[in-house]
Amino acid sequence: MMNDLIGKLFLWAFANPVLDRQDDQGVVEIRGVRVAVSTDSFVVDPLFFPGGDIGELAVNGTVNDVCMCGATPLFLTTGFILEEGMPLETLKKIVESMRAAALKAGVTIIAGDTKVVNKGKGDKVFINTTGIGIVERGLSISSGNLQPGDVLILSGTIGDHGITILSQREGLAFQAPVESDTAPLNELVRCIVDAGGEGVHAMRDPTRGGLAATLNEFAVASRVGIKVHEDRIPVDPAVAGACELLGLDPLYVANEGKALVATDESAAENVLKAIKKHPLGRNAAIIGRVVREDPGLVSMRTRLGTWRIVDMLVGEQLPRIC
Amino acid sequence: MMNDLIGKLFLWAFANPVLDRQDDQGVVEIRGVRVAVSTDSFVVDPLFFPGGDIGELAVNGTVNDVCMCGATPLFLTTGFILEEGMPLETLKKIVESMRAAALKAGVTIIAGDTKVVNKGKGDKVFINTTGIGIVERGLSISSGNLQPGDVLILSGTIGDHGITILSQREGLAFQAPVESDTAPLNELVRCIVDAGGEGVHAMRDPTRGGLAATLNEFAVASRVGIKVHEDRIPVDPAVAGACELLGLDPLYVANEGKALVATDESAAENVLKAIKKHPLGRNAAIIGRVVREDPGLVSMRTRLGTWRIVDMLVGEQLPRIC
Repeated sequence: MMNDLIGKLFLWAFANPVLDRQDDQGVVEIRGVRVAVSTDSFVVDPLFFPGGDIGELAVNGTVNDVCMCGATPLFLTTGFILEEGMPLETLKKIVESMRAAALKAGVTIIAGDTKVVNKGKGDKVFINTTGIGIVERGLSISSGNLQPGDVLILSGTIGDHGITILSQREGLAFQAPVESDTAPLNELVRCIVDAGGEGVHAMRDPTRGGLAATLNEFAVASRVGIKVHEDRIPVDPAVAGACELLGLDPLYVANEGKALVATDESAAENVLKAIKKHPLGRNAAIIGRVVREDPGLVSMRTRLGTWRIVDMLVGEQLPRIC
Repeated sequence: MMNDLIGKLFLWAFANPVLDRQDDQGVVEIRGVRVAVSTDSFVVDPLFFPGGDIGELAVNGTVNDVCMCGATPLFLTTGFILEEGMPLETLKKIVESMRAAALKAGVTIIAGDTKVVNKGKGDKVFINTTGIGIVERGLSISSGNLQPGDVLILSGTIGDHGITILSQREGLAFQAPVESDTAPLNELVRCIVDAGGEGVHAMRDPTRGGLAATLNEFAVASRVGIKVHEDRIPVDPAVAGACELLGLDPLYVANEGKALVATDESAAENVLKAIKKHPLGRNAAIIGRVVREDPGLVSMRTRLGTWRIVDMLVGEQLPRIC
């Protein structure tokens, strides 16, 4: 509820057409060049986890937000808030990891800032990254652009990142190892756009709030209904097991290296093939459809054959997941 | 020392020609358009102080960093890190203040993010802003561009912001009220560039570390000597009194609405006149000269007629001043 109030406060105070689109990135024109901009603060706890760390996450998270409109991310800025007494060795590991992640994603860090706060007024390190990319003319990929008949493609398994963080934090050990899926998606997005062209209507990486939140954001922003099939949504068996044990629904668990794509029916096969060819998209699947009925509503055909409504998460989300 | 180590770590890890310039903003070309980008996190304590608050500071601080290369700031992003339990009313006041500051500076907020951390793991609110501006072709204003013979112009009194924060934090009351000088400098910069053209070689707003830090950064980056005159550096009498009482040198105290400008001798009179005409530049003065001798060294003729070396601040800077 608090989050909701805060969101409304910002949208009211800073209202403008770019922000009002409520996409993960703002797209603006600077002297005829279309530029995509996204910002994110990372406060993940713990700092290091199987599959990644806060530094890698801070690069990949913003790279992904920038590229989800079809943009090519070019530049990043970084803002560090350090708690006094934070070991320099830890910081060094994080910075080295950011350096490697930036190289991998092909982005250059062009501005930075560091602030130090007194002990007990922060928590080791918080990192803000802001990303800047360029949008090819003509592309218009936005959560508000879904059309009835569109096909929904998910690039891989869900819940990996959230379950990894949660199990680390709670000291849980599962038989099968679970790893964060943090990865830069800009190369995959390039393949998607090359394969689907203007048939690609919307893309988003389902982070906080999981796949359920992204599906709902799509349905509301485009005023369409969405129908998905539970048995088509890929979930790693270890993650599924952990979710069952913890009483969590993987639909609501965060991802850090997945994309949900809505495409024209005619482009869907091409796009799916392109995704599956990419190492980050091997488990991709068509999970559902966009419909004209029930605008704003997401429903899911369960494994039992019944239909259920997939709400936005009510109540507390797992804090400090990214 | 810690700050120095961290600075070196970042410059080493993220080394690239844009970052290596060590200006307050990175300038890059995107499809032939020169874009200036700057990022800053604001952790000022207290949140509200005479003359401003963290929200206004977060807008003005980044607007100023962007425009110091002669760029016109256009867009901002904001990233909030809130401590659980932070009163919504306080947040609302801060957001409204940001809204007003953005309007005043003529910048649009195009992306935002909010994270919440557990109680005791943050301090009410930290705000990151990243700013994006456009640089007119031809301008090349950088701390590395000072030339021997250049004239140094300061746009007004020094120390106002730092003394305001310090006196609030320590509960000190002075007879004459002291106020933060937080202000957007982009309009003033426009006047400076219009008046001085390519005769404007370098600009920077002397924030953390005060005027002394900026003078030293100029001298080191351009490999020139700098000579200033103590009696020409404007200091508000109330600030001077407070500094005396607290044993502080105003040269090292932070500012949030001042610019130090280095211009060609031939442009100096025009630029000074333009600054003095602007409401934010009424107390502007020529404070010194760039010389060929003693590259990297800043020296000051004291009121007693002796010369002293103005070092970078050794030891602890006042924390959380911005």
